[in-house]
Amino acid sequence: MAMNWAGEAQHDHTPGYTERLGAGVGETVRIRVRVTLPVTGVKLKLVRVGEIELLPAREVQVPGTEGRWFEAELPVHEARVRYGWLLLFPDDHLNLTALGLHHARRGFRNWFQYLAGHVAPEWAWRSVFYQIFPDRFRNGDPANDVRTGEYLYGGRPVEHAEWGTPITKKGDVHAHYGGDLQGVTQALPYLTDLGVNALWLTPIFVSPSNHRYDISDYRHVDPHLGGDAAWEELSHEAEKAGVRIVLDGVFNHMGNENVLFRAALEREDAPERALFTWRDEPGKPPYHAFFDVPTLPKIDYRNAFAVEEFFSGEESVVRHWLRRGAAGWRLDVAHMIGSGGTDEDNLPLHRDLKAAARGEKPDAYVFGERFYDPEHALDGRGEDGAMNYHGFGLPVMQWLSGETHLGEPSRMDGTELADILWDAYHALPPQVALSMFNLIESHDISRALKRVDDDRTRFLAAFTLLMGYAGVPCTYYGSEIGLSQHTRGQMPWCRESMPWDEGEWDLELRAKVRALIHLRRETHVLHEGNLRFLHAEPDALAFLREYTHEGGRMERAVVVASRRAQPHEVTLTLPAGEWRDGLSGELFQGGEVTLNAAGGRVLLQG
Amino acid sequence: MAMNWAGEAQHDHTPGYTERLGAGVGETVRIRVRVTLPVTGVKLKLVRVGEIELLPAREVQVPGTEGRWFEAELPVHEARVRYGWLLLFPDDHLNLTALGLHHARRGFRNWFQYLAGHVAPEWAWRSVFYQIFPDRFRNGDPANDVRTGEYLYGGRPVEHAEWGTPITKKGDVHAHYGGDLQGVTQALPYLTDLGVNALWLTPIFVSPSNHRYDISDYRHVDPHLGGDAAWEELSHEAEKAGVRIVLDGVFNHMGNENVLFRAALEREDAPERALFTWRDEPGKPPYHAFFDVPTLPKIDYRNAFAVEEFFSGEESVVRHWLRRGAAGWRLDVAHMIGSGGTDEDNLPLHRDLKAAARGEKPDAYVFGERFYDPEHALDGRGEDGAMNYHGFGLPVMQWLSGETHLGEPSRMDGTELADILWDAYHALPPQVALSMFNLIESHDISRALKRVDDDRTRFLAAFTLLMGYAGVPCTYYGSEIGLSQHTRGQMPWCRESMPWDEGEWDLELRAKVRALIHLRRETHVLHEGNLRFLHAEPDALAFLREYTHEGGRMERAVVVASRRAQPHEVTLTLPAGEWRDGLSGELFQGGEVTLNAAGGRVLLQG
Repeated sequence: MAMNWAGEAQHDHTPGYTERLGAGVGETVRIRVRVTLPVTGVKLKLVRVGEIELLPAREVQVPGTEGRWFEAELPVHEARVRYGWLLLFPDDHLNLTALGLHHARRGFRNWFQYLAGHVAPEWAWRSVFYQIFPDRFRNGDPANDVRTGEYLYGGRPVEHAEWGTPITKKGDVHAHYGGDLQGVTQALPYLTDLGVNALWLTPIFVSPSNHRYDISDYRHVDPHLGGDAAWEELSHEAEKAGVRIVLDGVFNHMGNENVLFRAALEREDAPERALFTWRDEPGKPPYHAFFDVPTLPKIDYRNAFAVEEFFSGEESVVRHWLRRGAAGWRLDVAHMIGSGGTDEDNLPLHRDLKAAARGEKPDAYVFGERFYDPEHALDGRGEDGAMNYHGFGLPVMQWLSGETHLGEPSRMDGTELADILWDAYHALPPQVALSMFNLIESHDISRALKRVDDDRTRFLAAFTLLMGYAGVPCTYYGSEIGLSQHTRGQMPWCRESMPWDEGEWDLELRAKVRALIHLRRETHVLHEGNLRFLHAEPDALAFLREYTHEGGRMERAVVVASRRAQPHEVTLTLPAGEWRDGLSGELFQGGEVTLNAAGGRVLLQG
Repeated sequence: MAMNWAGEAQHDHTPGYTERLGAGVGETVRIRVRVTLPVTGVKLKLVRVGEIELLPAREVQVPGTEGRWFEAELPVHEARVRYGWLLLFPDDHLNLTALGLHHARRGFRNWFQYLAGHVAPEWAWRSVFYQIFPDRFRNGDPANDVRTGEYLYGGRPVEHAEWGTPITKKGDVHAHYGGDLQGVTQALPYLTDLGVNALWLTPIFVSPSNHRYDISDYRHVDPHLGGDAAWEELSHEAEKAGVRIVLDGVFNHMGNENVLFRAALEREDAPERALFTWRDEPGKPPYHAFFDVPTLPKIDYRNAFAVEEFFSGEESVVRHWLRRGAAGWRLDVAHMIGSGGTDEDNLPLHRDLKAAARGEKPDAYVFGERFYDPEHALDGRGEDGAMNYHGFGLPVMQWLSGETHLGEPSRMDGTELADILWDAYHALPPQVALSMFNLIESHDISRALKRVDDDRTRFLAAFTLLMGYAGVPCTYYGSEIGLSQHTRGQMPWCRESMPWDEGEWDLELRAKVRALIHLRRETHVLHEGNLRFLHAEPDALAFLREYTHEGGRMERAVVVASRRAQPHEVTLTLPAGEWRDGLSGELFQGGEVTLNAAGGRVLLQG
């Protein structure tokens, strides 16, 4: 646990310690460690061919900094180099790895890792995302709304729902509120004022449901969202406004109204039949499908046709939309994509996808929906990161709300929260950890506000953690003005339409959220800094972000949060120097301080 | 850390909890959990296609046991199934994984693992190994001794060394003391009396050095060790005595006097050239070699010739010696074996090797020398286990001696020791964890006795931990009678010749070692029991081994050890019931007890 490690020795991915990230195999990178312990010498430990090599480290002078610095040359000899530092003392020696300081030679999975050749889309680190569920965000053109009875979906007529009317279980996937891309374009000034500079749109392609995860045509925007023209306008206006847009790629399955699937059904000898995995099992559809739902046939990437069509081909879906202005892809159920009706070849397929995306747009940001532990998939060759349900959103909200995302009661305390967050963070290579897509809510799980009984203070604690944590933060449409749910639970209740009458907004909440978003946008250390936990108690925790420049100058932030609704005095030890509350401007001196952590705080230095 | 987990919920690999190990993919295994917490229900959590499935668990009655039992069917749907238990409470829920009880959904690497289709060579679990360095153990036939000047080795004449004369650095690999296989055969009554029922012989094949890791002929026993006839006799007599013999397989490199290598050198078109990786690099031999030592050309498994010759062929070296009585193979530098002068294809090659070994002898025991963290290699498809330097021997001796194996001072305390042992143990599938080859010393590192300044009490603490730990224990020739080193350090000092004059023996030490070996042999829970740490303080620790029979009856052992030379009263909490010291017979009642832990103790129950 990182808390055992009081910073007597420090090494991380920032330029003071690591010359650069993503150097290629065969290159050498200058790395450094800073030590305040009375060492007699330092060596670099390198894992090569399953053995540990000791390499020399020489002391270097870094004026104006505390402690002594040692420098070594790290040979980037393979795709993921594992290394650590050996600190020598007259009567002891210590290993420094990502886990901290320890006497034992820990398992390699805890060592520092240098990921060769992977350059992250760093614009994402400097971004705050805003997730939009297009049907529910803003109706820019009522003329394109789905009309009640316009078509049948699953044998039942679709319905037009009046903006602002509460969601009903019955309406669920049939109720269309009329939101569209024109609405998003119109809202760009609202979004940029809020501080947002990137959007994730859930699917926008032609699709019969209101969520559009059952795509009929991957190459056109749904006419009910304004069609291709609305995309062109949005893309153009967003670019002018400095807002990037990531689209939602549903590449595991398609809708059963998709033209490719219809063709496959029609003729036994249709080439499109190769896109699916046919079977004959009683009680199941005659093809593999997402959770055996017949309307969601699963795509089979065993054949080149599918790989070309969606990922690798010069005109693939992935390339098509990047060419037309998308900044990247969020990959729906990324862990399921595979061959033969299974998840086989999952990682190689993601590598194909990523290579195509980067070939088309060198800074495309590709991240998977991996609702469960994604560590195995995150070696930089596939996704840049993953939706951080596992290592951030689910545990944070579980701690804050006293319930799991499924509504099961849970008495997780702050110490355990710090432990699981740290465990998930330090397992990832730095470029990947900074590219994780952090969130506290989404269209798939309950709104955060509802989970804390609409308490603003507790919601702001979650939001402060989100803006302060390592990774790319994403907020969900409407939370900033207090949009909540009339019923507890996950979808569809978390998908209410966004009110645009300011009279319905919580302006005080919006001001605080807006201030936190702007603080995040303006604070470099929150974009690229290292992470270390400083403090944990049942109802509160604190972590340090630190970015060390090449000359040793440090930028630092401490993020503190309590889960209590009432003022909560928390005592923790800040690193030395003067600290300033990023929002209130209140000053603190390093050392032991007591402060009110309710609602969360961000303290800054340097 | 396992110590956080006080046993309120228990699940492990033993029959009370897991119907059987090694069931094949597609089968179902009945598993159980025992809970003393006030649960309202229990579910099984299963990882499938990267998602978590909840499966039902039903309460079952297991009369005469404490707590409530729940049972579920575990579908063995892939090679390594990850699973955990969900415990439900009115106001909380907990996950039980290999890591213990926790609220958070921990990373999958901490979940229980069921390894499909891998049946361990269980005789190894019931064995105590004795490592013999043949040149130094016993000279059974002086007629076959190497004579001084008999041949040149590395340009220098070899020497005959008088039995009992101290090792010199100069003699190192040239000095031959004359030990042989006849000597091992003669010593079988000595070994079986000691309690040993398995031997690991370092290499016995034709080779010019005294250590014989530079093999000239893999298909014949060195005439200086008595040749093939001495092996046949040893193999036959050992079998009669109930002693199995594991040979040392040097498959990464051979000696430069090997007939295959000589043929490759002689003719550019020799088929044997394909066995090596030729290169033209200034200052290096024209072929890849072990650490670039020219006398140790590295074998290149890129071609079928090498794979057939050593592993897969009907007459391969691996099969040849298993067919002639060997019980298994210890694989020298197992992590280095590979293609093209590298370690590429390491794991697939180990799978080939293992398949051939098991094809020849269904219970062959194959374990690798993996001096560093071996976790990535231990999925049951390759080696059954590995030499447990990483997860046992190195940290245990580091803690006990206050130095690393390289002689660097180290102030590791017992808490950190328990932490690293537990970390390494719980990362492995159960059949693999029980098949790890545990040792505290070997021909490659310092004798344990020397590392504790020849202090008997501290050595016995290490030996008690060795006999009590999960995995297959191996003791090194001569330690039982107090054989030590005249000089600190690793090889060659750890390879003194074994005295056979009882006047030179420490008979008191031998009696204690013998008693501990017999205790290990007779105590089933030490062969197959689960492992959990009970206690750790700077100078002492304790762990629990537990084996639960199908009906719920438990066998238990608690192993306690202190690193102090003087009596050391340690207070710990024993599980309920009556406990008996396995050697002294002293009785203890469960609950808080204080006992002298110096020298180590094994307490038994059930």
